Amino acid sequence: MLTGALRSSGVDCLSTREPGGTPLGRRLREAFLETEETVAPIAELLLFAADRAQHVELLIRPALNEGRIVISDRYADATFAYQGAGRGFPEAVVNQIIQLATGGLKPDLTLFFDISEETALERTRSRSETGEQVNRMDAETADFYGRVRKAYLQIAEREPDRFRIIDGDRSVEEIQASVLEIVKPLVEKLPSRETA
Amino acid sequence: MLTGALRSSGVDCLSTREPGGTPLGRRLREAFLETEETVAPIAELLLFAADRAQHVELLIRPALNEGRIVISDRYADATFAYQGAGRGFPEAVVNQIIQLATGGLKPDLTLFFDISEETALERTRSRSETGEQVNRMDAETADFYGRVRKAYLQIAEREPDRFRIIDGDRSVEEIQASVLEIVKPLVEKLPSRETA
Repeated sequence: MLTGALRSSGVDCLSTREPGGTPLGRRLREAFLETEETVAPIAELLLFAADRAQHVELLIRPALNEGRIVISDRYADATFAYQGAGRGFPEAVVNQIIQLATGGLKPDLTLFFDISEETALERTRSRSETGEQVNRMDAETADFYGRVRKAYLQIAEREPDRFRIIDGDRSVEEIQASVLEIVKPLVEKLPSRETA
Repeated sequence: MLTGALRSSGVDCLSTREPGGTPLGRRLREAFLETEETVAPIAELLLFAADRAQHVELLIRPALNEGRIVISDRYADATFAYQGAGRGFPEAVVNQIIQLATGGLKPDLTLFFDISEETALERTRSRSETGEQVNRMDAETADFYGRVRKAYLQIAEREPDRFRIIDGDRSVEEIQASVLEIVKPLVEKLPSRETA
């Protein structure tokens, strides 16, 4: 929706995601989500970092160098939250790995869609009922997701300018309006990034 | 051959390899070797580390805990040589990643099969002629392989007890004899590791 709205206003943007933003990344994502083997937490940390490194080098940096806006569904904060707080890796280790994978590239803005546990369970159930695949991450415990959420809120406290919380318990239309309200003024400040 | 010889002497050993020693690792190996996309060097480093972490946690440590001997075709020295010396990552970064992936687990013995550039080219050519797949690593330059070889020889200088060089330009039979000559006395010192 955001990508569509920006493109309609003549802004050239790349819409991508992690894990799986590149051809190699898609194969890594599948390997991770579909293997029936237990995945060692440290292997998970390194695998997502490999996906991110490829994503940054082959897709994100080239797009930024062309003056495009990049919108990614997840980025380094997810590793801080899921592998750091969720799996319990020390912050120093997680930060080292993130630094290596990104070369220090940080987003200008991060939107965090915060939802209650009830909404989360309901949406996972409804995805599962419509036949959409429920993956390895969906199967984690409420305790795990509690730690993950707390880590995201911690980032919001540390970096209030970059990191914005959006109430995701509302309707799609209300959420879309909140997103545009935050993003539009930022994009309008960047005339050099508009397409010719 | 070594595995077979040890098993014939009643030694319980696990024969494995990197990358690709586990089901997840095999998918990562395929993803890396078969993708037509350029692979960013930092993604390569992290991907091999992910494969190794899974290998150590799910296969190598459990086997060692059962008192088995583990023989792996490649391990952490390969990252020191290929990604460190070959791709040019600083030794401190490579060592950090190796430490994370292995949790500090080091082999008791490493055998390095040293061959001349001519033999290497000849064997790659013959593999290619017999229809065996020539992969992304086989396509590297002689200069790359020169740096890789030098790194291995550097390990040999630093750790002469663990790291042994075997002249791989000789016949298979001669090489096998050299390997057994080095390995047999070591294994005989470990009666607790023999099968009951």
